[in-house]
Amino acid sequence: MVNNILIRDCIVNGKKNSILIEDNKIVDIGEIKGDFDCVIAGEDKVALSGIVNTHTHLAMTLLRGIADDLPLMKWLTGYIWPLEKEYVSPEFCYVGSLLGCLEMIKSGTTCFVDQYFFEDSTVRAVKESGLRAILAQAIIDGDTPEYDAGSGVEFAEKFVKRNLNDSLIKPALGPHAPYTCGKETLLEVKELAEKYKVLIHIHVSETKDEVKQIKGDTGMLPVEYLDKIGFLSSNVLAAHCVYPTGDEIKILRKNDVGVSHNPVSNMKLGSGIAPVPGMLSSGVSVSLGTDGCASNNNLDMFEEMKMAALLHKVNLLDPEVLPAHQVVQMATKNAYNSLGLDCGLDVGKVADIVLIDFKKPHLTPRYDVDSHLVYAANGGDVDTVIVNGKILMENGVVKTLNEEEILDKANAIGMDLQDKIYKINTR
Amino acid sequence: MVNNILIRDCIVNGKKNSILIEDNKIVDIGEIKGDFDCVIAGEDKVALSGIVNTHTHLAMTLLRGIADDLPLMKWLTGYIWPLEKEYVSPEFCYVGSLLGCLEMIKSGTTCFVDQYFFEDSTVRAVKESGLRAILAQAIIDGDTPEYDAGSGVEFAEKFVKRNLNDSLIKPALGPHAPYTCGKETLLEVKELAEKYKVLIHIHVSETKDEVKQIKGDTGMLPVEYLDKIGFLSSNVLAAHCVYPTGDEIKILRKNDVGVSHNPVSNMKLGSGIAPVPGMLSSGVSVSLGTDGCASNNNLDMFEEMKMAALLHKVNLLDPEVLPAHQVVQMATKNAYNSLGLDCGLDVGKVADIVLIDFKKPHLTPRYDVDSHLVYAANGGDVDTVIVNGKILMENGVVKTLNEEEILDKANAIGMDLQDKIYKINTR
Repeated sequence: MVNNILIRDCIVNGKKNSILIEDNKIVDIGEIKGDFDCVIAGEDKVALSGIVNTHTHLAMTLLRGIADDLPLMKWLTGYIWPLEKEYVSPEFCYVGSLLGCLEMIKSGTTCFVDQYFFEDSTVRAVKESGLRAILAQAIIDGDTPEYDAGSGVEFAEKFVKRNLNDSLIKPALGPHAPYTCGKETLLEVKELAEKYKVLIHIHVSETKDEVKQIKGDTGMLPVEYLDKIGFLSSNVLAAHCVYPTGDEIKILRKNDVGVSHNPVSNMKLGSGIAPVPGMLSSGVSVSLGTDGCASNNNLDMFEEMKMAALLHKVNLLDPEVLPAHQVVQMATKNAYNSLGLDCGLDVGKVADIVLIDFKKPHLTPRYDVDSHLVYAANGGDVDTVIVNGKILMENGVVKTLNEEEILDKANAIGMDLQDKIYKINTR
Repeated sequence: MVNNILIRDCIVNGKKNSILIEDNKIVDIGEIKGDFDCVIAGEDKVALSGIVNTHTHLAMTLLRGIADDLPLMKWLTGYIWPLEKEYVSPEFCYVGSLLGCLEMIKSGTTCFVDQYFFEDSTVRAVKESGLRAILAQAIIDGDTPEYDAGSGVEFAEKFVKRNLNDSLIKPALGPHAPYTCGKETLLEVKELAEKYKVLIHIHVSETKDEVKQIKGDTGMLPVEYLDKIGFLSSNVLAAHCVYPTGDEIKILRKNDVGVSHNPVSNMKLGSGIAPVPGMLSSGVSVSLGTDGCASNNNLDMFEEMKMAALLHKVNLLDPEVLPAHQVVQMATKNAYNSLGLDCGLDVGKVADIVLIDFKKPHLTPRYDVDSHLVYAANGGDVDTVIVNGKILMENGVVKTLNEEEILDKANAIGMDLQDKIYKINTR
């Protein structure tokens, strides 16, 4: 049995050092000698504390590239929603989640926040993978593939109760958005979140149309409305936040709401550009998420970091905003802060560690580690992934999941789905 | 000696087929039986005709990440220009170009357009690599690390004459920009380009400041000015073109000027967003370039494709602009068109072929090849690269260059440069 792991001579916090892990904790960083159960050669590798993807719909990996370059409503009503209604099942979500876990491990994500249907299937896949996750059962007021209209909160409460006692997986509540969940639902969710001390993960202010609709229905902007009904607090993680005004940013800050910025998805769907530099300078904890693979179309957090760093520079015509160091913080520390994770490359922290192989042409020469992580690296450069002191991948080989089998299962579902799309589009 | 190569059972033009190469040409695509000198297993791999990077400064790979997140003038005057002045040499450009060639082969680029100093060193490196290239000797009116003020055109003419007779490398003329080369220089370059039938590669309308300066100096906008002096024609490839007006786009089209769009660099330096959908719909041949590694910071054309597809969608709040298929064309056919290359996945075309390994979690399942190439893949997924019928990389192993040796040399220069920056910043 492996009780301790030494990562020997990697680059950690800018210096060449070794990292000692005992059980699930980092117990020493420095020049370390001795005998260890497991030694990982860290030469030419950079250690980064675990990367967190704070917004995805994991099972949608199976819908990757099924419909692109379409207006939002055509995409949703012509493809995504009919497919979800007819096809999404516990098995679909289990295989899709396994595929997503495999992709995340391979690209260096150690923890993620999910919101989707059949979340029990995602729990099952994540447990097999060894990843850390906050898994939110999706709640909408209308009918779903999983439960009937009006029973979402009750259904989600059962999900939370079933999954309260895992060390790596935390259940959460996922009211989809303020335009798909009424005030009553939102307040019930709020009460349950306090009762069970779990996170609420919700889409907020993603598109102009949404802002218009909520303004029409309530007379208020989305964040104003959520504040007014007493929904907001530090246990809320809001995805997107593309259109908050300056006053709404102050509300987010006042309530200590975490924000997940999803630049690739917002760009691909033509949603807009979130005021991230403004949110950060106001003290809002902004982290990064990929969104689901139907609007990205991968789970590579390195791409998300580069996109975040670049998008706001060109939007403000200012090359100084979102420097590399700050973007790395968004993908790590800001997420730990919003999710209450005790991660980091320090003694005493939980051992969620990613090793990135810097012995690559595109990462040579090396002047600044953060610059390379944000502007030059990609998920394929990840070499080794450790979560909670357990090695999930070493030298590019995933140890917890059967890669071949998962790809075969995903391809089989993909072929069947392709046939289904054809039927949806021709009937 | 290898006279023919069979790529067996790859995905080519959407179907499973084999590709037969004889000498430097594609001679058959279909179900092909027989004995061949070399057989490449194409199962699970997608064949794409060679990707072309139409704007870079290759030797600047050695300046990758040396200074980021700075305002343009501070970046240029505080870092890039002093370093170039004091440090850029034939040896620097040779090692930097080798590193760049290695990175391009590994990420699936088969041809590129370069503009830099000591271009003979780049010729030397590219010849060793086996890549196809159009190499433009940089010309400015002022002093350079390489020649004195006023002698740039004469210097460049000698470069062109020395390199006219290579099958894979075409020499070109690289007047830096209309604000660093006067009218007389530009017209001399124009005359030489016609005399030697070579390409002119120039930066045009990259920043607001440049537009303002040229307007102040000439009373005209940059493209108007270049048209007025008779500089523009189909042998001009203009990099950036961030700020052309509608009338200037018409001028570009009328003169059949090729445009290299560099979204990552334009975003990172906060330059602005080029009117690419407008240029494309006006019939301008717009291809893609990474720019140099000091403003990107890699040469990954897959990232450039994703960035191009996403940037214009969010800029116009329209998810239908620059669909995946069109972006793949920009990185291939539009570049062939601007550069007069006879490439493509058809019988009779020159064999510049890239195989991308689709047996990866982030490329599973597969509904649409172009969607995956643009939205899900990265340069690390490239498996095999063939240029002019010669295998430069197979199964990720580069055959023409010594990877280990190049990385060592580049790292040695990097360590020395880091010391130099320290001196530049503290004196």
